[in-house]
Amino acid sequence: MFSNEPIIALATPAGAGAIAIIRISGQDAIQLASKHIVSKKGKTLANQKTHSIILGHVVDGKRVLDEVLVSVFKAPNSYTGENIVEISCHGSTYIQQEIIQLFLRNGCRTADAGEFTLRAFLNGKIDLSQAEAVADVIASDNAASHQIAIQQMRGGFSNEIKELRAELLNFASLIELELDFAEEDVEFANREQFTKLLNRLSLVLKRLIDSFAVGNVIKNGIPVAIVGEPNVGKSTLLNSLLNEDRAIVSEIAGTTRDTIEDEMAIEGIGFRFIDTAGIRETTDVVEGIGIKKTFEKIKQAQVVLYLVDGALLSDISKISALKIEIEKIKNQFPLKSTLLLINKADKITETATAFIQKQLNSLSDPLKFIFMSAKTGVGVEDLKLELLGLINTGALRNNETIVTNSRHYNSLLKALEEIQKVQYGMDAGFSGDLLAIDIRQALFHFGEITGEITSDDLLGNIFANFCIGK
Amino acid sequence: MFSNEPIIALATPAGAGAIAIIRISGQDAIQLASKHIVSKKGKTLANQKTHSIILGHVVDGKRVLDEVLVSVFKAPNSYTGENIVEISCHGSTYIQQEIIQLFLRNGCRTADAGEFTLRAFLNGKIDLSQAEAVADVIASDNAASHQIAIQQMRGGFSNEIKELRAELLNFASLIELELDFAEEDVEFANREQFTKLLNRLSLVLKRLIDSFAVGNVIKNGIPVAIVGEPNVGKSTLLNSLLNEDRAIVSEIAGTTRDTIEDEMAIEGIGFRFIDTAGIRETTDVVEGIGIKKTFEKIKQAQVVLYLVDGALLSDISKISALKIEIEKIKNQFPLKSTLLLINKADKITETATAFIQKQLNSLSDPLKFIFMSAKTGVGVEDLKLELLGLINTGALRNNETIVTNSRHYNSLLKALEEIQKVQYGMDAGFSGDLLAIDIRQALFHFGEITGEITSDDLLGNIFANFCIGK
Repeated sequence: MFSNEPIIALATPAGAGAIAIIRISGQDAIQLASKHIVSKKGKTLANQKTHSIILGHVVDGKRVLDEVLVSVFKAPNSYTGENIVEISCHGSTYIQQEIIQLFLRNGCRTADAGEFTLRAFLNGKIDLSQAEAVADVIASDNAASHQIAIQQMRGGFSNEIKELRAELLNFASLIELELDFAEEDVEFANREQFTKLLNRLSLVLKRLIDSFAVGNVIKNGIPVAIVGEPNVGKSTLLNSLLNEDRAIVSEIAGTTRDTIEDEMAIEGIGFRFIDTAGIRETTDVVEGIGIKKTFEKIKQAQVVLYLVDGALLSDISKISALKIEIEKIKNQFPLKSTLLLINKADKITETATAFIQKQLNSLSDPLKFIFMSAKTGVGVEDLKLELLGLINTGALRNNETIVTNSRHYNSLLKALEEIQKVQYGMDAGFSGDLLAIDIRQALFHFGEITGEITSDDLLGNIFANFCIGK
Repeated sequence: MFSNEPIIALATPAGAGAIAIIRISGQDAIQLASKHIVSKKGKTLANQKTHSIILGHVVDGKRVLDEVLVSVFKAPNSYTGENIVEISCHGSTYIQQEIIQLFLRNGCRTADAGEFTLRAFLNGKIDLSQAEAVADVIASDNAASHQIAIQQMRGGFSNEIKELRAELLNFASLIELELDFAEEDVEFANREQFTKLLNRLSLVLKRLIDSFAVGNVIKNGIPVAIVGEPNVGKSTLLNSLLNEDRAIVSEIAGTTRDTIEDEMAIEGIGFRFIDTAGIRETTDVVEGIGIKKTFEKIKQAQVVLYLVDGALLSDISKISALKIEIEKIKNQFPLKSTLLLINKADKITETATAFIQKQLNSLSDPLKFIFMSAKTGVGVEDLKLELLGLINTGALRNNETIVTNSRHYNSLLKALEEIQKVQYGMDAGFSGDLLAIDIRQALFHFGEITGEITSDDLLGNIFANFCIGK
């Protein structure tokens, strides 16, 4: 799979800007670049120290393509671990393409998606989970996901896994050693210490596995469905939430005519709000389809915000109907956090407010509710606090390792399963050769995470999701 | 106007990519950056040599924002002539913004459009016409405009102007010296040599002024109007032309419902094709508006391609009508290059072809025409050659200076005017003090081009058109 032939790619975002960077990596990168780069002060690219910059021209024969700054990084002190030349050119798409085409005609090939990072991994500059974190860092669009990705990229997670693996490996080799001396019935591996290690491994693995619940939502944003009949103020609520932080709204995509999704960060945690069509009993076929879609959206969500027009709740029959409606949703989606938002609260009398509160508190399974006004913003801060409270951000605050990658999560699950088998075997007094099989499996799954054990297929899958130029 | 306080801007295109570059320039840039950049190998930013790179982290207190490469350029050996720090970070918009915000909170301000290049000019790193060329280089989207912009950026044009100015200045000072010795009636300035210089200046200025006709169209693309009745194949022709070079089509903008503009390069020269509504006599008001627009487009164009359906020309009355139509256009727009394209030529018999040729050649003022098929592509290459033939690319091939900037063009025109006044004064035997006034004016206009003479307003105008970060 691996080659160190020179690869080239635009590393900066596509489009026009003040400057753009074209990156060449490979054993011959410097030699190759020097054929088309003429220093303004008569310097030779090959004689440059690593991590130095020269001013020069990119030339194609007599034609000057651009005046550029050229950064030289010499193997192994570079991102990929190979020789790297970075050409910082004027940021016109025309110039970018002309320079890339020049080098494609002269010994380079276009880099595959993530190939620079793949080479960094293959050359031992970073391990697999760090490589994956590079893509996460680039994709992160809020403080929490960014913090976790940076931590993982810097090796925090890898080191934890590697330490566990090293300890387990140590015991594994002792146990395997016993097998060589099977006739002599010796125990090199201290069983008591081993039991302690297994317990510790179990605990750490469980903590990491549990962290995925938080990690996954932080990475992808917590999906929150806004549910309610038309005109109760769903769009107003969405706008009210987003206006607070409009600058970091990242995308607006109407997946269906009736569903709007929008992202925002509250205290650095990303939430993905999904505005849905109204829910109500209907015999209308088309409306039925809309409601079916709404239920699909609720299914995807982690949190359901059930919005009602408070002014319509002053009637006992309406509150009863609401109770039934909410019980229905809670029964249908028992694992969701559901929050009742009583909108247009500014239009309800104090008596009515007290009445509604009493009725809601008397539910067999009391529901969290907030009186609010999406229009004036009253209660929006309470809602944000409530949303934040749903996520266990303790781990985040304490800088603990949080698993965000489902591949790692799966490997951790499998590793825990194997560790539990070993624990069972220890309790049942299994012989070393039987224990060794499960230990090897656990080691295998640890190794999958950091890339000590890997396959071309796996690498292909991981790096295919990278952008070109990284 | 000038300050050297630290300014910061994203220098790479907006959006997500593998890497992004954030540039800080100013006397305190390095000191300021060093407060938030921690080297991985314990290096100190301030101790770094110019044109060197270190690997480190951008930190905000205890929070690590990103792992970055930091390039240091020390005054005066930098783009702006000031200390510059370039932070090469991961290319997520979130990280870009976090790093920029960090430095905005800590002593930097956002750079104005073109402010880095403005500082380069004010610090004497480049002159004004070179600064203007930087924007042209970034905007260039074909080989010809790129070549001219690069040449100008490298100082080709400036040097030519500066040499002329220096020679004129030399004579001017001699003549002004004579004024100090007016009573003694001496001539320090050799009148014969001065006449020769003035003649040479006139010649060079005329050549430069003439080059603007080519330079302007090369810079902005040569507007070519495609004219003809509906269904004669205008869109097919446009597609046929563009398909050849689809990769460098840069923009598609329907300025009106009936007008499509599209750009392409032929042999590196940009052409801007304008597909128009059909022209014909009409009493319909709405159609009349469309035709009026078409005539406006023809007015803007440098070349008119008049497309007819060849199959409809086998009739003598149709050819007569066409003759009248073409004469009308030629009379209305006498300065346009008009080319008659006889489309669907594959459907015309040989006899009919010969007949049409004879009829067209018998016109009092013969018209250039090409038999072609937009659909099969027959004749399209002939058309391209014909279009290229309309432009005097000799200067381009010979690497002569070509003026593309209308500001320079205007200054050159004014300089020539003054030189001609001086020539007239010499012929008329004017005294030195009278000559000196016009010479000073000519020097002023030369100086305007390279920025030896400038004003805040002028600089403001020029740099307002730059992108932020350059």
